Amino acid sequence: MFSPLIEDLIRALRCLPGVGPKSAQRMAMYLLEKDRDAAGLLASSLQQAVEKVGRCSRCRTLTEQEICALCNNMRRDHSLLCVVETPADVLAIEQAGNYHGLYFVLHGHLSPIDGVGPADIGLDVLGERLGEKQSNETGAEEPMIRELIIATNPTVEGEATAQFIAERARARGVAVSRIAHGVPIGGELEYIDGGTLAHAFNSRTVL
Amino acid sequence: MFSPLIEDLIRALRCLPGVGPKSAQRMAMYLLEKDRDAAGLLASSLQQAVEKVGRCSRCRTLTEQEICALCNNMRRDHSLLCVVETPADVLAIEQAGNYHGLYFVLHGHLSPIDGVGPADIGLDVLGERLGEKQSNETGAEEPMIRELIIATNPTVEGEATAQFIAERARARGVAVSRIAHGVPIGGELEYIDGGTLAHAFNSRTVL
Ligand SMILES: [Zn+2]
Ligand SMILES: [Zn+2]
Repeated sequence: MFSPLIEDLIRALRCLPGVGPKSAQRMAMYLLEKDRDAAGLLASSLQQAVEKVGRCSRCRTLTEQEICALCNNMRRDHSLLCVVETPADVLAIEQAGNYHGLYFVLHGHLSPIDGVGPADIGLDVLGERLGEKQSNETGAEEPMIRELIIATNPTVEGEATAQFIAERARARGVAVSRIAHGVPIGGELEYIDGGTLAHAFNSRTVL
Repeated sequence: MFSPLIEDLIRALRCLPGVGPKSAQRMAMYLLEKDRDAAGLLASSLQQAVEKVGRCSRCRTLTEQEICALCNNMRRDHSLLCVVETPADVLAIEQAGNYHGLYFVLHGHLSPIDGVGPADIGLDVLGERLGEKQSNETGAEEPMIRELIIATNPTVEGEATAQFIAERARARGVAVSRIAHGVPIGGELEYIDGGTLAHAFNSRTVL
């Protein structure tokens, strides 16, 4: 129906999450008919990002810098480290706004059947972080990381990954915690799935 | 929150129609985390399309070819010409599947207050098309275009454009028609806007 280059563009746009055939067509038409400048800008942004964005050498989040802005921010608490599966999780936690420590991004979770082992999710790098020491007021050495907060997803793999990391952290004398899971605030019980409800009961706290 | 290149990419993605801040973030994360090949392909498709896609010299639809595949298709009826506002309209009519003539794309409509005059919507090119002649069986000359079907949108500007084109076509001895407007097939009367209903009554046909 369209010319080959337009069909190519529509096909390429369909690779975007949430974009079906109709929206891809609409996007292609919009870019070519109404806003070629935006199309050119998007092309070069994609090119630049693909070429230059790598991972922060400290926390492994996506960045084109050697060390990301979060890791470089001295107004954050560098003794707290929160382990997440993806950069999008960092964003979600930042938008919640009450955590002011640093992050460590796994880019996945342990998954032996898919051949994803500890090194693939950066646990060697995390191990080094957990091994970093500093002297306290009395001159004694203590871990740089005061607390490791594990915020992997509450899935089977996320839980297994959390347990694995927790053991390693405890072995190095670092305190470990896991974020709470249960009924979302404002969530109505009748719409919560059974697994979440069961977990909420098992993890109930004394009032 | 994100590094400059990622923020640039998110901003560029937001230029796509129907893409808000959340989806742009999700798209950027997806491309950088999961599918850099797709990102690279999208970048080059955009680049290619922006550079090479122009307009068919016959019908003005978007294509990188001198003459588009529709105009070049000898299995279509070259004596029927349908005037539409956008390439997306061509697609919609093609998908309906019962029209087998050619198209002429205005890329807009007459809009004197916006400084859009006849030449801006290709009416000079359309005029040449309407002036093309061929000899019939008896050797007499007749217009190449047997019927001009006007399918501009049923808006004030679309109607004015339709009237303007119709006059020019009639002056050249070409038969002109306008596609029907009214209650959509399968549409329920109670949900149809008043303007459409009024038009449907005025355009009623004898049974
Ligand atoms: Zn970092
Ligand atoms: Zn054409």
